[in-house]
Amino acid sequence: MLRIGMLTSGGDCQALNAAMRGVAKGIFSKVKDVEIYGFKDGYKGLIYSDFKMMTDRDFSGILTTGGTILGTSRQPFKLMREPGEDGIDKVEAMKHTYHKLNLDCLVVLGGNGTHKTANLLREEGLNVVTLPKTIDNDLWGTDMTFGFQSAVDIATDTIDKIHTTATSHSRVFIVEVMGHKVGWVTLHAGIAGGADIVLLPEIPYDLDVVVKSIQKRADAGKRFTIIAVAEGAITKEEAEMPKKKLKELQEKKKKKYPSVAYELAEKIQNKCSQEVRITVPGHTQRGGSPCPYDRVLSTRLGAAAAEMILKKEFGYMVAIREDKICKVPLKEVAGKLKTVDPKAGIIKEAKMVGISFGDEM
Amino acid sequence: MLRIGMLTSGGDCQALNAAMRGVAKGIFSKVKDVEIYGFKDGYKGLIYSDFKMMTDRDFSGILTTGGTILGTSRQPFKLMREPGEDGIDKVEAMKHTYHKLNLDCLVVLGGNGTHKTANLLREEGLNVVTLPKTIDNDLWGTDMTFGFQSAVDIATDTIDKIHTTATSHSRVFIVEVMGHKVGWVTLHAGIAGGADIVLLPEIPYDLDVVVKSIQKRADAGKRFTIIAVAEGAITKEEAEMPKKKLKELQEKKKKKYPSVAYELAEKIQNKCSQEVRITVPGHTQRGGSPCPYDRVLSTRLGAAAAEMILKKEFGYMVAIREDKICKVPLKEVAGKLKTVDPKAGIIKEAKMVGISFGDEM
Amino acid sequence: MLRIGMLTSGGDCQALNAAMRGVAKGIFSKVKDVEIYGFKDGYKGLIYSDFKMMTDRDFSGILTTGGTILGTSRQPFKLMREPGEDGIDKVEAMKHTYHKLNLDCLVVLGGNGTHKTANLLREEGLNVVTLPKTIDNDLWGTDMTFGFQSAVDIATDTIDKIHTTATSHSRVFIVEVMGHKVGWVTLHAGIAGGADIVLLPEIPYDLDVVVKSIQKRADAGKRFTIIAVAEGAITKEEAEMPKKKLKELQEKKKKKYPSVAYELAEKIQNKCSQEVRITVPGHTQRGGSPCPYDRVLSTRLGAAAAEMILKKEFGYMVAIREDKICKVPLKEVAGKLKTVDPKAGIIKEAKMVGISFGDEM
Amino acid sequence: MLRIGMLTSGGDCQALNAAMRGVAKGIFSKVKDVEIYGFKDGYKGLIYSDFKMMTDRDFSGILTTGGTILGTSRQPFKLMREPGEDGIDKVEAMKHTYHKLNLDCLVVLGGNGTHKTANLLREEGLNVVTLPKTIDNDLWGTDMTFGFQSAVDIATDTIDKIHTTATSHSRVFIVEVMGHKVGWVTLHAGIAGGADIVLLPEIPYDLDVVVKSIQKRADAGKRFTIIAVAEGAITKEEAEMPKKKLKELQEKKKKKYPSVAYELAEKIQNKCSQEVRITVPGHTQRGGSPCPYDRVLSTRLGAAAAEMILKKEFGYMVAIREDKICKVPLKEVAGKLKTVDPKAGIIKEAKMVGISFGDEM
Repeated sequence: MLRIGMLTSGGDCQALNAAMRGVAKGIFSKVKDVEIYGFKDGYKGLIYSDFKMMTDRDFSGILTTGGTILGTSRQPFKLMREPGEDGIDKVEAMKHTYHKLNLDCLVVLGGNGTHKTANLLREEGLNVVTLPKTIDNDLWGTDMTFGFQSAVDIATDTIDKIHTTATSHSRVFIVEVMGHKVGWVTLHAGIAGGADIVLLPEIPYDLDVVVKSIQKRADAGKRFTIIAVAEGAITKEEAEMPKKKLKELQEKKKKKYPSVAYELAEKIQNKCSQEVRITVPGHTQRGGSPCPYDRVLSTRLGAAAAEMILKKEFGYMVAIREDKICKVPLKEVAGKLKTVDPKAGIIKEAKMVGISFGDEM
Repeated sequence: MLRIGMLTSGGDCQALNAAMRGVAKGIFSKVKDVEIYGFKDGYKGLIYSDFKMMTDRDFSGILTTGGTILGTSRQPFKLMREPGEDGIDKVEAMKHTYHKLNLDCLVVLGGNGTHKTANLLREEGLNVVTLPKTIDNDLWGTDMTFGFQSAVDIATDTIDKIHTTATSHSRVFIVEVMGHKVGWVTLHAGIAGGADIVLLPEIPYDLDVVVKSIQKRADAGKRFTIIAVAEGAITKEEAEMPKKKLKELQEKKKKKYPSVAYELAEKIQNKCSQEVRITVPGHTQRGGSPCPYDRVLSTRLGAAAAEMILKKEFGYMVAIREDKICKVPLKEVAGKLKTVDPKAGIIKEAKMVGISFGDEM
Repeated sequence: MLRIGMLTSGGDCQALNAAMRGVAKGIFSKVKDVEIYGFKDGYKGLIYSDFKMMTDRDFSGILTTGGTILGTSRQPFKLMREPGEDGIDKVEAMKHTYHKLNLDCLVVLGGNGTHKTANLLREEGLNVVTLPKTIDNDLWGTDMTFGFQSAVDIATDTIDKIHTTATSHSRVFIVEVMGHKVGWVTLHAGIAGGADIVLLPEIPYDLDVVVKSIQKRADAGKRFTIIAVAEGAITKEEAEMPKKKLKELQEKKKKKYPSVAYELAEKIQNKCSQEVRITVPGHTQRGGSPCPYDRVLSTRLGAAAAEMILKKEFGYMVAIREDKICKVPLKEVAGKLKTVDPKAGIIKEAKMVGISFGDEM
Repeated sequence: MLRIGMLTSGGDCQALNAAMRGVAKGIFSKVKDVEIYGFKDGYKGLIYSDFKMMTDRDFSGILTTGGTILGTSRQPFKLMREPGEDGIDKVEAMKHTYHKLNLDCLVVLGGNGTHKTANLLREEGLNVVTLPKTIDNDLWGTDMTFGFQSAVDIATDTIDKIHTTATSHSRVFIVEVMGHKVGWVTLHAGIAGGADIVLLPEIPYDLDVVVKSIQKRADAGKRFTIIAVAEGAITKEEAEMPKKKLKELQEKKKKKYPSVAYELAEKIQNKCSQEVRITVPGHTQRGGSPCPYDRVLSTRLGAAAAEMILKKEFGYMVAIREDKICKVPLKEVAGKLKTVDPKAGIIKEAKMVGISFGDEM
């Protein structure tokens, strides 16, 4: 008898269900005597022993569905080791559930925060296998995370639609793209959508350069400018601030602006005669059916995770590198961030087709 | 020789190009000796005599494209009769251009504001034919405007995507839908997207009823609630205010909230334990390729407008009623608004499938 | 206690689930003491008493899903009254199931064939309410059937995609569109996709006119011609044949050609130097999530059917006319076909924008 | 002065325009004194000196458009060296045009056949740079070709739509996917669409295994089976035939069946009680707007090609390997085929989730 726990944690994204289907189908194809415990709402379900037994029927028909059939919740790592309001030591509670159910392994689908906790559970002696889930694509150790390409598709669709209205009205349009502290989605959607200016956390921008780029386009007779800005984009001044001061500033801005696009719009409008408009696709970037790319990727990762479980290879994240599935030790993944390299070929190529990153004219 | 002027005015929307293609193809199919003058950026082009001569090639391949090949601009009717900063009497300027070019007719594509000006030009003796363009579907005299169904499709897609993330996270999600002062897009997208609560300008809502509806769903074990709110939605208190006081209030709110969804979110969050999130698809609702429904509608209206021009029937808006193209006198259209009837069958049917309009429990 | 049977019959289409959800939610919103019996695979389930009890959970989350949760099967009306191989009198068997389960009413979703049987059951004394389901839009008594607009969207998307490859390669492209014996889907998708030639069952075509239209385009420097042909399109010669002879001919052609597009391609290729290519989107036109238009329509029809049931108004099809839900006696619906009127405004308007129907130069 | 010729050859696909835009924008961003000659309809334009001068405006707004603004035609390599009906030595004619226009370089976008000719021109002393264009993804030397992911998206959408109708009707559905002699598109779309059986040229199938797999699903209570078959799929018997005999057989089958799906359907229907249906998305797989993935890839490849031209690095195909742009000598590319490795991880992973390749039970 094989007993497997499974949970999805952190912000939801496309292909979570497809990935779980991959794991389950991979297990069921080799072993009949298996029990899968699905924990509800991320680590919360593991902490409070809230789960449902799952059969192969639960994993049928979910390849194309968005969201997660298990539910999820954001679990800040820092709270894990401290008893919360309810007086419960969360790590001990998770261990307790794991051992009480006599699990052979815990399968965790999540992003950066999730992986910190997963590594902690590994250190505590649990058998853990993880899958790299996030639209942000910022997980170290894998070339690609599932959810990313689906989010790029949606953000690009937004820019495409804005293009037509921008053309008609002669405006500056700012599209704010998700991605947490990294610029992967913005970079790809910006290139794919033909944005004129792309602002990323990894390439701090100079407002004057942005304004001059807009002006240059206007001078060349172009009716409009489209700016794709990452939700984590920062200015050169901000990038050079001491961390503490930056954090204070950001707290202040949070109160003033709903999000970064609003701040940027105000600053540009002050220096620019064209009307400035904002579009924030927001949570739609996490939603809907996964794109075919993500379905293939998540299915492959899921099946490979199943194989690792059957081979009793624990303590790893399943990853893809150079189109091959591989495994990466959790202790190497935890706490690292994969960011866009400002010197990467893709940045240079983007600049060649005329995209400004706001860092230089 | 037939000389036709053409312009698109007001906020852009889908199928403007398809409609102009319909007019042009309809004319070219019957008359060879014709000149079409395309005025740039709405009435502005007519005022300042800024136009381009158009051939059949200009109208080829634009059935599926978004935006308007002529550009557009918002032209507040109230400024029309007063000389602006440039000292120009705009109405006289438009008449001057019309007569100077020896036009037989002016084809105008636009929404409510545009129709007021079009009617004014008619009163001034110009031959005018108009087409009902707006995502808001608020033009009196026609069952349907082009742009509407495309906007419904996009707003519904937003709600669909939010559904998956709402399910995963157990939240209240507010999706703000365009529509100016009427609720057509919100009503249709709300039903099509399976929203739980739909708030329209035509049915003022009671915040307590909204909060109770959320609570009722939570009590019934539903993880989430999705609210589709029209950008023009108002509360019962606001609906009963004197107009002047309401306007003052709305001015005040404009400074505090980026848009109505932010205000509603704040109010609900104050009374509700579930996290509240906002999505504002915004201008994307006007963008992208027109949906097939709008392409058929706009092509039909365009062809019918062509026939009216050839028959020298001027002073009308081309409309569709009971699936038949007809013509409506401009003087009847101008200044009227087509709103959602709170007693219409569709409202009753929506309530039967469990949608709350926030007006009653 | 209210006992309702429900079944979907005939070819599947989009929004069947949405319509059933409308009925069920409409019933549950008013009556608590209700049992819904879902018969499997159309009338077959009623004949062989194969059903499942359904709760409100079965109808949750199906607004956007394709297909039918009940399954369906094609039930040729002519077999209904004759005992089949199994010796069962199907009509008696259906009555038996109905009475055995003590049903108050049978809700039937289907197209033309389905309505004949539904009317037969009504004549036999059963309480029947039907909903107009078909992509073909050929049901008499309703302006619109659900499934139609979704099918138009898919067929239009096919023509859109073919457009780009047609442009690149200088070819004649034939796109075969579903619609059984009527041309509704082809007509709308043809206009929406910008097809150059549209061939409908209701307007028999002359091959020479088709070939001349292609030639005329080539002479005018157009690289390609796109033909949207209805699966039921016929030539003028065929239209004038005695019925029996036509049937024989069609049987013969069925053996020679996979479908009408292959025959047409062969005939055109014989008279035309450009390469001719075929695309048959086929069953995809019935598949996938219903478009927002169909979701609204089917929800409204479903809710209205619920109200009819609660009011004990039986023997009707729920319909939409002039955007209002109404009821049409089943005896009037059964056996009639709603076809495209060759003299309708939409045909004239389509001709004005240059579409050839192959009937005249 | 820099003089560049450009042409697109072979079957069209998505992102051809995006790639040319990348090249042109990349060149214009560095050099002002440049002339771009666009040859029409592939090598034909080079042979017959049929071209148009292109400015930066020609490359604006084409990132998202399907097809190719230059047109294309299939140019069988074998005819290149022999004078055709018109007595012209095609290679000499191409050289003549190249030298007459005093070109510095010829940019060629195409697939396998195109690359053979491009290499031939290189051998003849022309400066050639190529870009890997094909939905088939069968070009040796690059991890990915543009067009591939867009085709996968469309084929997957077809399978998705068929899923709903398959579920409703209890049928076997065969979806025929493009890919010429390789199985890349079918493999990826098959996994992404959740096909039950996937038949590839690289893994010859056994009809009995296919039929048994269908039976096995039926026995397990699954209503339907979906088969994704590559247009180039072959049986084990065929794979073992001498080449000449196989060719004869294939010629014979071409006369009998419109395409491989029809043959497969007939064979399965003979051994299987469930109804078998066919869907052939065909040329739609090449059409429409490129997906964001292809837009990014083609833009990067285009920009990199521009840089190679500016550095006078000729005789290469621009490629992507391990997410980095690189260059591959044309002589290495020409005549090679990149096929799916039956032992690749992705095949194993697909089998783990239950996909049958028809090679073993």
